[in-house]
Amino acid sequence: MTKTYSIGIDFGTLSGRTVLVDLDDRRELDVEICSYPHAVMESHLPSGLKLPADFALQHPEDYLYAIKQTVPVLLKRNNINSNQIIGIGIDFTACTMMCVDKEGIPLCFKEEFSNNPYAYVKLWKHHAAQKQADKINKTARAQGCKWLDRYGGKISSEWFFPKILETLENANEVYETTYRFIEAGDWVVWMLTGNETHNACMAGYKAMWHKEEGYPKKDFFKALDPRMENIIGTKVSDKVLPMGAKAGVLNEYGSSLTGCAQGTAVAVSNVDAHVAMPAAGITQPNKMLMIMGTSTCHMVLGKQERTVNGICGVVEDGIIEGFYGYEAGQSCVGDHFDWFVKNCVPSEYQNEAKKKNISIHKYLREQAIKQKPGESGLLALDWWNGNRSILVDADLTGVMIGMTLATKPYEIYRALIEATAYGTRMIIDNFEKNGVKIDEIYAAGGIADKDEMMMQIYADVTKRKIHLSASPQAPALGSAIFGAVAGGYFNSITEAADALGKIRQLTYEPILKNSVIYDKLYDEYSSLHDYFGRGVNNVLKHLKSIKAN
Amino acid sequence: MTKTYSIGIDFGTLSGRTVLVDLDDRRELDVEICSYPHAVMESHLPSGLKLPADFALQHPEDYLYAIKQTVPVLLKRNNINSNQIIGIGIDFTACTMMCVDKEGIPLCFKEEFSNNPYAYVKLWKHHAAQKQADKINKTARAQGCKWLDRYGGKISSEWFFPKILETLENANEVYETTYRFIEAGDWVVWMLTGNETHNACMAGYKAMWHKEEGYPKKDFFKALDPRMENIIGTKVSDKVLPMGAKAGVLNEYGSSLTGCAQGTAVAVSNVDAHVAMPAAGITQPNKMLMIMGTSTCHMVLGKQERTVNGICGVVEDGIIEGFYGYEAGQSCVGDHFDWFVKNCVPSEYQNEAKKKNISIHKYLREQAIKQKPGESGLLALDWWNGNRSILVDADLTGVMIGMTLATKPYEIYRALIEATAYGTRMIIDNFEKNGVKIDEIYAAGGIADKDEMMMQIYADVTKRKIHLSASPQAPALGSAIFGAVAGGYFNSITEAADALGKIRQLTYEPILKNSVIYDKLYDEYSSLHDYFGRGVNNVLKHLKSIKAN
Repeated sequence: MTKTYSIGIDFGTLSGRTVLVDLDDRRELDVEICSYPHAVMESHLPSGLKLPADFALQHPEDYLYAIKQTVPVLLKRNNINSNQIIGIGIDFTACTMMCVDKEGIPLCFKEEFSNNPYAYVKLWKHHAAQKQADKINKTARAQGCKWLDRYGGKISSEWFFPKILETLENANEVYETTYRFIEAGDWVVWMLTGNETHNACMAGYKAMWHKEEGYPKKDFFKALDPRMENIIGTKVSDKVLPMGAKAGVLNEYGSSLTGCAQGTAVAVSNVDAHVAMPAAGITQPNKMLMIMGTSTCHMVLGKQERTVNGICGVVEDGIIEGFYGYEAGQSCVGDHFDWFVKNCVPSEYQNEAKKKNISIHKYLREQAIKQKPGESGLLALDWWNGNRSILVDADLTGVMIGMTLATKPYEIYRALIEATAYGTRMIIDNFEKNGVKIDEIYAAGGIADKDEMMMQIYADVTKRKIHLSASPQAPALGSAIFGAVAGGYFNSITEAADALGKIRQLTYEPILKNSVIYDKLYDEYSSLHDYFGRGVNNVLKHLKSIKAN
Repeated sequence: MTKTYSIGIDFGTLSGRTVLVDLDDRRELDVEICSYPHAVMESHLPSGLKLPADFALQHPEDYLYAIKQTVPVLLKRNNINSNQIIGIGIDFTACTMMCVDKEGIPLCFKEEFSNNPYAYVKLWKHHAAQKQADKINKTARAQGCKWLDRYGGKISSEWFFPKILETLENANEVYETTYRFIEAGDWVVWMLTGNETHNACMAGYKAMWHKEEGYPKKDFFKALDPRMENIIGTKVSDKVLPMGAKAGVLNEYGSSLTGCAQGTAVAVSNVDAHVAMPAAGITQPNKMLMIMGTSTCHMVLGKQERTVNGICGVVEDGIIEGFYGYEAGQSCVGDHFDWFVKNCVPSEYQNEAKKKNISIHKYLREQAIKQKPGESGLLALDWWNGNRSILVDADLTGVMIGMTLATKPYEIYRALIEATAYGTRMIIDNFEKNGVKIDEIYAAGGIADKDEMMMQIYADVTKRKIHLSASPQAPALGSAIFGAVAGGYFNSITEAADALGKIRQLTYEPILKNSVIYDKLYDEYSSLHDYFGRGVNNVLKHLKSIKAN
């Protein structure tokens, strides 16, 4: 009997991760990971050109390279015939925006634009469009645009139109030459199939698109800039396909990249976080999934559309058909700890970790886990990369208080972890205050798998049971689920999620005596959160503006 | 012709520093430094006994050892006869309190007390008596004690009676056995001369003594604890000698320690910071001297007694006869930077510094000096060791804000330096608000000599010209001045200061364009200072109390 497989490709911040799923046996068979050669370009272009502040670019070559370096390897290593793959799914960080010509060729591939930062991919964490986001928010409020409510009352600088407007205002030649501004996830599908699609998840969460209402109206775009009046249907595609749909089939080029047969079904692209919901088997409300990586995305399904301030968005059918998919996020989680170990860990710690032959993260956790909640006397606001939810403000920066001359590095490390847990509780409390109930937490991503201390802290701080996604590559598995549906193996995402989505036996239960202390600390966090984040004292913004001048 | 010399011994936090001064040639001839073998005991007694939180003890053996290791060396190295020394002066950190028997033998020297922390020297930065300081402040306010005004409205936990009350409450057996609680500076003079004295500077600044009113009254001590009712004149000497007086002459033991002749004049002890005023040639009002070391002391002379909240104290004749000596302080300056380099500097920095064969401090400064004011976006409150002036609150802790994922260690280092400069300006502004004018700043101590970047930042932040004491050992030179007066070489401290006090040619002038930015940053510092320090949000204390539980 010939077995049937699907492929899921998860395009993360630093690498492409591809899984091969055995559909008949209902199991993830193999995984292959490929780091992007250009990684994230934050200071220089490949030419050496210095980038402005807050830039975070990528090179589209890397995405094609990651496909080529992973899919054929999986086929070969598992002795799978190219036509045994029934479908391919793609997920991507979002909003990760690029500009291409009519054939889909990225402008940065062209000689004349190769030294222009605006011609490259603006990664999700490109933060240089705050001015434009402010303008969009102001304009939407002035015009009384109701769609703003669906995005927690504020559009983030990380999203689609702020990034486009930034290009228009700073690099008109790029704007003019662009045929399409497109999500990188949709661009990869285009490259594989020859079909240009715009997926409803990215359109809904990142580009203010709505199932019934469509995009914002011409008047709105005109008010932003007259040159943008007719952008929808011209420089931005208005053909939005629902989640779970088939975008097309592999064309000759797509086949040459993947090693799979021409004609293999390809699903419409998906956001990396959202696609992980079915991978964790979540197809019902009141269960929040946290995808924990460099940043954290929080997703929960609801049966009603509710206005929740400070969330990233609520999109009908945006995650699973038949539900309103709510998304919130924290813009700095793993990045936090990486910053810390790169910049703040003394050489004795590095030497000790080397001696024990463990990572510096593991060494720090070994020290920090011995501490009781509150023992360090430290408290931090987790805003090293701004605050996504619930303040939606990229201009906020980090805060740490309580240091003494006896404060140790591992205490600071733990305080940063705790700060992200308080940030998550802030998001949960805000959801519940607005009628979106959250009974249980599911976690996926590298941190969830590796860091027991952190997961226990999250359970203690949020006072909720935490389940873990069974797949170490939850987004890629989710994409493989979408690929399998596109290929017709299952009839719906729900059916596919029930078959392939899995959680681990290990769960984290809140420990009451810890929660009692964390309740107190969270109260302190909340008061600082409002003081620094809601304008009582705008010192963080003043410092940023002094810095900018 | 036989030349005449004086000796000054400065007992600092970590070492004794002795200078030999050629009085005829008006110059510092030589210096010898001896680190204390036991340094500061903050975690364990020599026996291994673990110390409670906030303890900072010393071993009195170290003081005698430091004399023995320095004075005879200076005599020998400079071919000076033991009787060419006309006088010896001593200065000490204060309040550094010890308990001794009738012969002056420290209780910790005795077998039965050698394992009792309370029998050791409580160093100035011993911070375990906050509860007792609170009680003293409460009692003084309840009784309407006017003397409280002279201490800025608050007695510090670092001072004499809080430390005694702490011993009474926690180690009654030590309290009962003690014949005298005494400043370590006075104890050293006692050991050298056989005369027990209490110097007016330490009595005035640290033990609430006043030239006309004496100590607080019996009723006050009784209210603190009935067992303390008669403490003055019994367990605390009431024989207070004025500054510049002669305490006595070297006895046999004193001669054996110093190698100087029996009969050599010894001045009454002095506080290390205060004694540096004449060393910098300051004998007039409106010039503030900063002694910058692990902590910073600020001294200024005035012609009138004014009530200034949050200062350490104002004492008539407390620094120079004929003036009111004002003292304020910051409890964490050099300690700040040491904490940082020990705990927060990555190995790459350490390696680079090693490669360049410079100290890690110098390496950090080389990076930080390239930055413009405000460029880092960081702001800190310099409270890692509490706040001495103007909040007088040992329970406050550090604050740092403005961090991003791009924040570098040298930026944090500079932010800590800037924070101490804002703390100094807060002290200056507070003095001036209360009628004590400050036109110029003088700086002494290791930091002032070594750190050009820091001194320029201080000039820019305070908007005042900064002079530098010419002596790298200003307190020891000051002590030698007092020794020379005790020995009769000069008629007064003012005369001696005019002859021996010196400043360097190098001065730091404020740079206007920096001051403009620092004014803005100082405004932000001030608002955080009041928010965290004056009870608007008592989060720092809440964290400390959660930590304690």
